[in-house]
Amino acid sequence: MHFPQRVQINEVVLRDGLQLEAKIASLEEKKALFNGLVQAGVETIEFGSFVHPKAVPQMANSGELYDQIAGDSADPVLIALIPNLKGAELASSKGVERVNFVFSASNTHNLQNVNKTTEQSLKELEVIHTFCQTNGIIMNVSIATSFGCPFEGEVPSSRIHELVHKLIDLKIDIVTLADTTGMANPRQVSDLLESLKKVHPEQKFNLHFHNTRGMGLANILAALEAGADSFDTSLGGLGGCPFAPGATGNVCTEDTVHMLHSMGIETGISLEGLIETSRMLEKVVGHNTPSYILKAGPSDKKYPVPNN
Amino acid sequence: MHFPQRVQINEVVLRDGLQLEAKIASLEEKKALFNGLVQAGVETIEFGSFVHPKAVPQMANSGELYDQIAGDSADPVLIALIPNLKGAELASSKGVERVNFVFSASNTHNLQNVNKTTEQSLKELEVIHTFCQTNGIIMNVSIATSFGCPFEGEVPSSRIHELVHKLIDLKIDIVTLADTTGMANPRQVSDLLESLKKVHPEQKFNLHFHNTRGMGLANILAALEAGADSFDTSLGGLGGCPFAPGATGNVCTEDTVHMLHSMGIETGISLEGLIETSRMLEKVVGHNTPSYILKAGPSDKKYPVPNN
Repeated sequence: MHFPQRVQINEVVLRDGLQLEAKIASLEEKKALFNGLVQAGVETIEFGSFVHPKAVPQMANSGELYDQIAGDSADPVLIALIPNLKGAELASSKGVERVNFVFSASNTHNLQNVNKTTEQSLKELEVIHTFCQTNGIIMNVSIATSFGCPFEGEVPSSRIHELVHKLIDLKIDIVTLADTTGMANPRQVSDLLESLKKVHPEQKFNLHFHNTRGMGLANILAALEAGADSFDTSLGGLGGCPFAPGATGNVCTEDTVHMLHSMGIETGISLEGLIETSRMLEKVVGHNTPSYILKAGPSDKKYPVPNN
Repeated sequence: MHFPQRVQINEVVLRDGLQLEAKIASLEEKKALFNGLVQAGVETIEFGSFVHPKAVPQMANSGELYDQIAGDSADPVLIALIPNLKGAELASSKGVERVNFVFSASNTHNLQNVNKTTEQSLKELEVIHTFCQTNGIIMNVSIATSFGCPFEGEVPSSRIHELVHKLIDLKIDIVTLADTTGMANPRQVSDLLESLKKVHPEQKFNLHFHNTRGMGLANILAALEAGADSFDTSLGGLGGCPFAPGATGNVCTEDTVHMLHSMGIETGISLEGLIETSRMLEKVVGHNTPSYILKAGPSDKKYPVPNN
């Protein structure tokens, strides 16, 4: 087993984590969570998204949040999710320097998600890309349903290759392969990543896994072995899955960082700091999260011997 | 990534799963669970343990259960856990043909668990081994805390090598390396298994992982890559962890089988049958279990497209 020495964690709780919550987090609560993450040493944070506030009211304060958190250069890289050109324009008007555009490899999923065919989204992607270049914004792209679609089922790896090829032609900085509804398995992750790395050895791939079927950390392990060193994770494993009530969503940041550290892989993040912020998160959302480490503590925790 | 074609699942819910439950499962309930597992195609079942009924009242009906489930040769392999010679004698008096003796690599854990030093347990192991040989019983051995001790912390791999060496000298059929409180990480699993396989290429190792820190399936993945093809798992992930209230225990059978099948690895088990029996289990214990697949369904499940 060969692993990278250091892994980059992109924290998505403020966006992917909070966007399905019944209780809408206030600006102050989001700021407190943001500060906790920064203090823990998180270097990349997807802080919100520029979508229509009626569609996702949980993200309506993303612009205000950016005003308050965008600061000096010591701060983490801030990323805004954008679903369309309108979102890119809004993000740009706020001074956002890095955006992430999402579209689905599966046509049916894309239609459900943004009411456009994948082809239409790809055309929009080119327009947004030109807009970003003109406005000095770095554009990342996430390919949703890269490992399967809840409606269509299997998404052939040839389809992902084709889409990645288009993105690389556009010189997209970071391409994220997203397992949007937790369908990936470790063999599939390994096969897809290795075949992509063979064709595009210089491209930076980021992985976005969900823990819907409990395979989140196993998929991260498979990706690490295939050379990946960048992952989207969500504090507390917050995120949920709109298709399976009660099911877990995003792979959990503290569980991921704990596994990486226990394997001797660096992240630059304080696990203690994450745990504290994750405790705060449970208060903000008003319910327990699927985090394992929050419940069990780290594996190097020693318990007092009873009856001694 | 190289994986075995087929994996053996040893179902431990009737023993490890139920032994910490507040509600004691009746003989009828255990039989119904057993029948569900057999119908699903499970080939090896740890059905109970011969411990003092005051110490573990949940296991007091293990002998009666055996009377009712031990049948024709088409049935699964039945294993009874035994903590000491007395247990072996009880199992033998019931006609049990295969037992599993457990002791801890960590002295402190062994003292807590069976009130003996590890050295004392090793001496008892030899006595039990002779007893089993005399009485035609196959003896497996589980080394608890093989990947760490909640009291002592790290358990050096040299210690596990030393213990495994002793067991192989005794020609123990199956040696189980147990991550008793969920402390193992994938790199550690890989390193330990590969080093053991190098010295003892012919020995069959079975792995017993807990999902306390969410790494259960990742550890199984690491073990598969190191050539392991036999795992203890518990239906519904039932089991708990006495040291971390609310934390998850054993790695979940249906989650494991789902991952293996999705990777093209055979188990001979019907996932549907497991899910049905896991649903029954939640009724028996009277609470939800940590199973992912029970909540989310398998990854090849297709959802109807809304608004179509």
